Amino acid sequence: MVVKNQIKFIKSLQQKKYRNQNGMFVVEGIKSVREFLNSDYKVEKVYVTKPDIFNMDAPEMELVSAGELAQMSGLHSPNSVLGVFHIPIPKKLDVNDWILVLDDVRDPGNLGTIIRLCDWFGIEHLVCSEHTVDCYNPKVLQATMGSITRVNLGYTDLTRFLSTIDLPIFGTFMNGASVYTKKIPTAGILIMGNEANGISATVEKLVNHKISIPQPASRAGMHENQNTESLNVATATAIFLNEIRRE
Amino acid sequence: MVVKNQIKFIKSLQQKKYRNQNGMFVVEGIKSVREFLNSDYKVEKVYVTKPDIFNMDAPEMELVSAGELAQMSGLHSPNSVLGVFHIPIPKKLDVNDWILVLDDVRDPGNLGTIIRLCDWFGIEHLVCSEHTVDCYNPKVLQATMGSITRVNLGYTDLTRFLSTIDLPIFGTFMNGASVYTKKIPTAGILIMGNEANGISATVEKLVNHKISIPQPASRAGMHENQNTESLNVATATAIFLNEIRRE
Repeated sequence: MVVKNQIKFIKSLQQKKYRNQNGMFVVEGIKSVREFLNSDYKVEKVYVTKPDIFNMDAPEMELVSAGELAQMSGLHSPNSVLGVFHIPIPKKLDVNDWILVLDDVRDPGNLGTIIRLCDWFGIEHLVCSEHTVDCYNPKVLQATMGSITRVNLGYTDLTRFLSTIDLPIFGTFMNGASVYTKKIPTAGILIMGNEANGISATVEKLVNHKISIPQPASRAGMHENQNTESLNVATATAIFLNEIRRE
Repeated sequence: MVVKNQIKFIKSLQQKKYRNQNGMFVVEGIKSVREFLNSDYKVEKVYVTKPDIFNMDAPEMELVSAGELAQMSGLHSPNSVLGVFHIPIPKKLDVNDWILVLDDVRDPGNLGTIIRLCDWFGIEHLVCSEHTVDCYNPKVLQATMGSITRVNLGYTDLTRFLSTIDLPIFGTFMNGASVYTKKIPTAGILIMGNEANGISATVEKLVNHKISIPQPASRAGMHENQNTESLNVATATAIFLNEIRRE
């Protein structure tokens, strides 16, 4: 049986404040919990409603009732598994490859999609501004589908970080040079900005190369009176990473 | 004052069944309603809580109280504008350009993002299977940000459609040929599949060219024991359309 205090503690991890205070976060769902168990993440506890879900008998495993799991869960329809893991210390950056930087991306779904893209394209390092949405936010974790376990993610002051790193800094701007024709080096920094405001003015000053995804020529002239929306930050990231990794 | 029956009618349009029965749908928010008013869509009625929102005095405009708008709205926090528009008859397809085909895309957010991508890349025609999520679903409309007004969208039996069209048919498959090296014609059909199951077996038979986004070589060898998730259908569409439109 799970004591009331444990349930209260686990519920508190739905909030960033308590995640940071305790250095822990919650993962729900068999597939995601398995990815974390198979990763370098340190496990604190895994609550399961059936004994043999993971074919492993570890002291961290605890059998609970469906009712108890529902009380801990942040989901409307709780899964049969809930894991508590420790927030890791970010690894040292590898300056021989591309590093993705996010300047205040706020939407959990966007961050989750971007983490999946990093995993897919083998972008190992993701550096986020301090106001970017927390990657251990349950909505982000759900959107990453476990791929966050294969991405080294940290939060920092971008101005300080970008001032000290010895790599060409590419930033995405509506009026930047075409990413199709721009020479792309084998290593660098790619900065994606906030959903509504793009890259902030202070970060913009540190950008060496402004790039953009040009609209097809046929398109640009077609609807002069209408404002085609810009691309969503997650789909734009997909296209930029594709261009970087494309041979 | 809006009569009770009107409110009931507008609320009913939240459901696909009633949208199809009446040939109408609801759009919420100033920006989106403005896009529809400036488009070829036929307006039935626009309810506004302030008289001068659109600087136009049309018989379709009706001033309502915030309380009345809240009763009609499908949103938790209603906007100050709600429009009722007619579902158009799809235009004739242009076989001199690329046509995007969706085989049972079910998530409203994914369809919304894909419609935005069509608008951005100037893909005018989007053909959906009959089980693809309804594009006049309020969640889809919200995700498109009005760009649906610039895309010609229809639902049809894909097997019949693909059997009769005289264009090369490209389908996306995990084991397809690399889209980076494949020769891309100036016109064709690109099929994207369902979120969980990809392209259905019956549609697969009609595909002439199977293509894929290859993972970076460095990536493929790195995590042999782990299943990197495939790309989400919306981000994959972004990359394929980018490859098609890229010079």
